[in-house]
Amino acid sequence: MGRVTERRRVLRIRDGAVSARPDTLVAEEPLEIRLNGRPLAITMRTPGDDFALAAGFLVSEGVLGRAAELTSIAYCAGATADDGTGNTYNILDVKLAPGVPVPDITLERNVYTTSSCGLCGKASLDAVRTSARWPITGDFALTPELLATMPDRLRAAQRVFDRTGGLHAAALFTPAGELLDVREDVGRHNAVDKLIGRALQQDLLPLSEAVLMVSGRASFELAQKAAMAGIPALAAVSAPSSLAVDLAAETGMTLIGFLRGTSMNVYAGERRIALPDGAGQTDSAGQTVKTGPQMS
Amino acid sequence: MGRVTERRRVLRIRDGAVSARPDTLVAEEPLEIRLNGRPLAITMRTPGDDFALAAGFLVSEGVLGRAAELTSIAYCAGATADDGTGNTYNILDVKLAPGVPVPDITLERNVYTTSSCGLCGKASLDAVRTSARWPITGDFALTPELLATMPDRLRAAQRVFDRTGGLHAAALFTPAGELLDVREDVGRHNAVDKLIGRALQQDLLPLSEAVLMVSGRASFELAQKAAMAGIPALAAVSAPSSLAVDLAAETGMTLIGFLRGTSMNVYAGERRIALPDGAGQTDSAGQTVKTGPQMS
Repeated sequence: MGRVTERRRVLRIRDGAVSARPDTLVAEEPLEIRLNGRPLAITMRTPGDDFALAAGFLVSEGVLGRAAELTSIAYCAGATADDGTGNTYNILDVKLAPGVPVPDITLERNVYTTSSCGLCGKASLDAVRTSARWPITGDFALTPELLATMPDRLRAAQRVFDRTGGLHAAALFTPAGELLDVREDVGRHNAVDKLIGRALQQDLLPLSEAVLMVSGRASFELAQKAAMAGIPALAAVSAPSSLAVDLAAETGMTLIGFLRGTSMNVYAGERRIALPDGAGQTDSAGQTVKTGPQMS
Repeated sequence: MGRVTERRRVLRIRDGAVSARPDTLVAEEPLEIRLNGRPLAITMRTPGDDFALAAGFLVSEGVLGRAAELTSIAYCAGATADDGTGNTYNILDVKLAPGVPVPDITLERNVYTTSSCGLCGKASLDAVRTSARWPITGDFALTPELLATMPDRLRAAQRVFDRTGGLHAAALFTPAGELLDVREDVGRHNAVDKLIGRALQQDLLPLSEAVLMVSGRASFELAQKAAMAGIPALAAVSAPSSLAVDLAAETGMTLIGFLRGTSMNVYAGERRIALPDGAGQTDSAGQTVKTGPQMS
């Protein structure tokens, strides 16, 4: 795939000095995902890992949970551009295995409303709970020291960011701190879908022994994707939203935000945080520790 | 609106010291936008400025361009939560003026595909061109010195960010540098929709004498929203995507990225950048200047 980045001329201004030169940009193009031949969604994404993106999207939607439920993913052969340049590789079709229910996804994904209940954050949480295939499990404990290493290792593993500065990243770590996979995309949700889709393709779901690390904020949508993949811990460099915290608390997920340097905030699921010795409330095993009121 | 932020308990870890305390989070809740009574879209947003958000969303969709095309926006009276807490203020209905065409928005907004043309970035650009109401005009010139002041002024005007660290922001400036308006939201696209919607409500479109400044990256979606509102200049703190640059170049929009300190990159529309004296290619008027190959 030569389209992960593209070159454009740029005028650089630095302290009054001006120069014209080529610059590397992150590529952004639409991807249409079809399900059994029927258009399902279009997303703006960075080309590359498209099959994984589609598979991960369908995990987030509750359609896929096992590799065997997926028969094939292929670019549409007839999807050629008007100018005769051939297949644009921007339309793909996912074929489900026989018997796998095809969802009726209307309006917007995962937010359902009825005239009787109104629409509220709770409705969004309910939608995740009813469509999730697995409960959140995973009894590991993460030390603050280990968590503190993850942002730098995420950044070090980003291949395209260094050239463009324009990509969100998402990575999976083991509870022991081993980097399992890292994916980049112009869209934060796509980076996570690519990670989860690759795990689905390897039939690794639920990811009950994994930590999901994201380069930006922790929104409801990212927490939802983690929940649908059974990931018990989500760590973000920036702030979480209220609804992301609510979802984590309700599903038993550990949610860490503002993970920078040796500092971090634990918003939910603190039972998976192994606090340092001498922090006061260390338990006898010195592993799984609670401080103050229990949060989840 | 008391729901722009919410309080949650958080476990803070700083260099090994642990404390439990309340923390302020940016609120995130779903908003369902109905058009003449029919559900059109659901977005996850920070409550507040909901009517402006809906109006701006409809500008981006090409549905609205003038205040007179909008009859009313109101929260749905029957949209109450199951628990009897009353109206959730998360569903609103937009009534268009008689004769204003109701769009048939299916699948995903503003990306259209046909079996004959495939799907490519060009199709996305075409969709903007065919649905835009105004060409991009505006013959002003921006000095790098003026542009360099905008990020700090955007940040200074953010009321909620300081408390939560979790919000994207978007601001409109005049070409002379006057701050016209600033909006915040957990979603970058929502912050821009809120800005543009308020301008629509005041019948200020097209915004041909304005600069849109955003706190993050410049994606295709943000450039598209600027184009649909007739905004001739888009400045971003972080990187643009390839398709955002293509859209700016095609519509004649000035696109500035990596606007930090006294440095910036001009990706398109450099005719609106007044380069410093002595930069080499200053024209006789000393105002609108081009350096190197013309980019747009």
